[in-house]
Amino acid sequence: MTAWKSDIEIAQSTEMWPIEKVAEKIGISSDDLEFYGKYKAKLNYNKLAAGKEDKAKLVLVTAITPTPAGEGKTTTVVGLSDALNRIGKKTIMALREPSLGPVFGVKGGAAGGGYAQVVPMEDINLHFTGDFHAIGAANNLLAAMIDNHIFHGNALGIDCRRITWKRVVDMNDRQLRNIVCGIGGRVNGVPREDGYDITVASEIMAILCLSNSISDLKQRLASIIIGYTRDEQPITAGMLHAEGAMAALLKDAINPNLVQTLEHNPALIHGGPFANIAHGCNSVMATKLAMKLADYVVTEAGFGADLGAEKFINIKCRKAGLKPSAVVIVATVKALKMHGGVAKTDLAGKNVEALERGLPNLLKHIENVTQVYGLPAVVAINKFPTDDAEELELIEKKCKELGVNVALSDVWGQGGAGGEALAKEVVRLAEEGENNFHLLYPDEMPIAEKINTIVTKVYGGDGITLSPAAAKEIKKLEDLGFGNLPVCMAKTQYSFSDDAAKLGRPTGFTVTIRNVKVAAGAGFIVALTGDIMTMPGLPKVPSAEKIDMDENGKISGLF
Amino acid sequence: MTAWKSDIEIAQSTEMWPIEKVAEKIGISSDDLEFYGKYKAKLNYNKLAAGKEDKAKLVLVTAITPTPAGEGKTTTVVGLSDALNRIGKKTIMALREPSLGPVFGVKGGAAGGGYAQVVPMEDINLHFTGDFHAIGAANNLLAAMIDNHIFHGNALGIDCRRITWKRVVDMNDRQLRNIVCGIGGRVNGVPREDGYDITVASEIMAILCLSNSISDLKQRLASIIIGYTRDEQPITAGMLHAEGAMAALLKDAINPNLVQTLEHNPALIHGGPFANIAHGCNSVMATKLAMKLADYVVTEAGFGADLGAEKFINIKCRKAGLKPSAVVIVATVKALKMHGGVAKTDLAGKNVEALERGLPNLLKHIENVTQVYGLPAVVAINKFPTDDAEELELIEKKCKELGVNVALSDVWGQGGAGGEALAKEVVRLAEEGENNFHLLYPDEMPIAEKINTIVTKVYGGDGITLSPAAAKEIKKLEDLGFGNLPVCMAKTQYSFSDDAAKLGRPTGFTVTIRNVKVAAGAGFIVALTGDIMTMPGLPKVPSAEKIDMDENGKISGLF
Repeated sequence: MTAWKSDIEIAQSTEMWPIEKVAEKIGISSDDLEFYGKYKAKLNYNKLAAGKEDKAKLVLVTAITPTPAGEGKTTTVVGLSDALNRIGKKTIMALREPSLGPVFGVKGGAAGGGYAQVVPMEDINLHFTGDFHAIGAANNLLAAMIDNHIFHGNALGIDCRRITWKRVVDMNDRQLRNIVCGIGGRVNGVPREDGYDITVASEIMAILCLSNSISDLKQRLASIIIGYTRDEQPITAGMLHAEGAMAALLKDAINPNLVQTLEHNPALIHGGPFANIAHGCNSVMATKLAMKLADYVVTEAGFGADLGAEKFINIKCRKAGLKPSAVVIVATVKALKMHGGVAKTDLAGKNVEALERGLPNLLKHIENVTQVYGLPAVVAINKFPTDDAEELELIEKKCKELGVNVALSDVWGQGGAGGEALAKEVVRLAEEGENNFHLLYPDEMPIAEKINTIVTKVYGGDGITLSPAAAKEIKKLEDLGFGNLPVCMAKTQYSFSDDAAKLGRPTGFTVTIRNVKVAAGAGFIVALTGDIMTMPGLPKVPSAEKIDMDENGKISGLF
Repeated sequence: MTAWKSDIEIAQSTEMWPIEKVAEKIGISSDDLEFYGKYKAKLNYNKLAAGKEDKAKLVLVTAITPTPAGEGKTTTVVGLSDALNRIGKKTIMALREPSLGPVFGVKGGAAGGGYAQVVPMEDINLHFTGDFHAIGAANNLLAAMIDNHIFHGNALGIDCRRITWKRVVDMNDRQLRNIVCGIGGRVNGVPREDGYDITVASEIMAILCLSNSISDLKQRLASIIIGYTRDEQPITAGMLHAEGAMAALLKDAINPNLVQTLEHNPALIHGGPFANIAHGCNSVMATKLAMKLADYVVTEAGFGADLGAEKFINIKCRKAGLKPSAVVIVATVKALKMHGGVAKTDLAGKNVEALERGLPNLLKHIENVTQVYGLPAVVAINKFPTDDAEELELIEKKCKELGVNVALSDVWGQGGAGGEALAKEVVRLAEEGENNFHLLYPDEMPIAEKINTIVTKVYGGDGITLSPAAAKEIKKLEDLGFGNLPVCMAKTQYSFSDDAAKLGRPTGFTVTIRNVKVAAGAGFIVALTGDIMTMPGLPKVPSAEKIDMDENGKISGLF
């Protein structure tokens, strides 16, 4: 086995630039930085965005349907961004902040990999600038105010059995999924069933990421529905007078964070909503600020293009008025072989047939991007050190045969230099490619029809099956005036269908909608298919057991 | 009614200095600052403390037994420190960080008051530099690892009914005091009873505040007892291999925070353990670093001198090898009148008789400081704008009659200028006062005898009553080798006795010890008297309802 350096070793062996030097590259003076140590800073959106146009070309990086083999979407964003800077395009990347909880589970770090990373990776993977803790505190303040209201007489008539607002913690803690709280007698609250989500699943995360100003943020916070009365009337955070204090807790969290890549290019990392029950993209403020300061902005969306790109376009672009200039679809040899039926344990050997069998998954995602949304697209084959040359060539050849733009990307191993071919193709598409961008459905389409449109057009399914509960809830939400909101699909990320076992490009399936709920503050309807996990657990040997810090404060054991 | 400015109005109308200019005053260059915005910075203890002696004179500010009328201990620390700087003594204050939860309850801010405040008060009262969130995350990571260990087979044989480690959140949330977690079927954990404390009550808070290095921190974290097996054998965090990841989460939190007073003098604000179940002082690292950089260090201890000063001396000074040079005991007219039997609602009018009846409370605290610990002491009469001149004079006169040092302090209204008389007296005592400092009891004294010594010598009680549970637990802890640890009394702060209704200077009482427990990581035995609340609740109309933020990010509604 080759002795590759681990991500944290590579990251720690790179000398970072002081963040003010990185900021200088995009015309921000150190007076306009709120430093968090020497290598991280917050940018005041209000001040820096004022009077500037969203001039940059926006490049979305998405991926084929994810597999346990990994795709390297974040790595590609980092490497592509470094490559664009290398070929003379002033580029800022906009990424999601990693969640703390999974760092202690199996995932390790989430700040790119190899020579395509953002740094300081330890800080980014741990507390960073405290945004997620602030979101958690705002979420839990609202929860405390709900129960406190009930405790002191419940003047609003909140039905304890219809409270939809959960507490959150940024930790993988299955033990908290379902709890009974308020026990121990009269002075200790009112007994009821409750549960915890991980912080990234909080509606406040989605709200922060979709807000475009403080007043917008406060209005969204006030609109949060925390539950219902016995006669099904919604109770909002505004009715509890919670939005001001919640906004105060988010005072700093609303501003984007500036860090750097290993090649000292600027990266805005801000917000990180779940990609299933929420929309899975970094904040609108980070994307917009980047677009005002650079010529190119590279960003990503969670999971595969069926979920991430769909939500990026139909929720984020719709709400923020964004128009992508090009889309990169990341694929890997290993992941395509898994879509071709190979088990994770058998991926090592060459298997061209399996690879070919897996390609339709990639092709369906390309079709969606180019035909459903009308956007120019390029496939980035993200090279792993163990990949076979013949297998890499096969993907390239097949794409070319079908007229699909494709570029090999070796940013994991070579950083920006390994992404230049991809960068050139992205520039060609963004500047000369045909762009007929359009949303998938209009606001006024009824909720069930929106869901059906996503399933048939994007997933390639035959249609949807609405459970009676879902049908009833859709009726209720449309009656309450939420019919015009876009839909946020909560579906397994491992298949186009709602069955995680159906790899490749499944056909002949329908998607069952178990229930729907409104995120009235974030401004979308969540359609739930199957059981969506909003609080992960730790594995038998959590990675926390290997994480350590030495006497000088140096961290080890993050991957 | 006079139109006094509110604390936040005063704070926001003061132009702060850039924090590097404040740091310059104590010989720290901006290269050695980890900035958190322009007005807060972390100081790397390892680097800045290396090779320097604890040269400063250490001044402890404590108080009479607290009443709902308020004493103004933090205000006095800030004002005295400003005053010492005014009279030419290079002074740094070392304070506790306020807890976030109470800010949304009734308390409002906790960063001094009037013209004796530390700023930026909004930040200090909200997330500050994220220390408490980091402590909460470390606490909750350990909790998740405990339940995960049990879920995956419980190889260590942890008894679910004997788990002593609770989860925490920095929020006043009574609903979480007692919960049942792990419900909802096999994949969702193991059902058991559990509960939340507020973050400041976490043992990790006490550990962080008593550690003097990263290796000391890790050793303490590993020593935490999280519960017991069925045959009463302790299970530690180290057995779960949790200390490395917990330490990594505390990477930045271990370093003291530098801010400024309204008069631009340096303040180290770091850590804030509960003053009942923990020792209630800022971190040893902050105190020691301040002592290495200044001529005078002013610090405080929680609650009245019976709890705060006792623990400061017998836990913090014992463990860290500190020797105070002088003690300030803060008293107010209103609080003394309450000790003299006046209800809070009747405090407005003059009542010299009640004031005289309340004085014995003050005198007992003075006796303790001077006779029990052998330290020079001065009474600071903390003036409120509404105080009557005759009443103020009476305290001064009575103290002088009894040979007690006393100074009027008007720092709330005048800032450092109002504290010069006190500062001069403090300097006189610290430089010329008789100092026969000694601890109250030796390490090797048996646990029950230590408790009895505190009750009889410090509280003025007749002795203690040990419950059978306490007697059994003391035996167990002494058998396990914890007999040499100091005792941390968890008692009501409102009386020398364990009965909150006994104001003034009660006599003829015994204190009932309900139970004891070990904080093996922090290194003390907690003696529990009565019900000690470790998770506060919100009032009917929480102050959160009045907190707001405007479009420019300016906060209002903090007091």
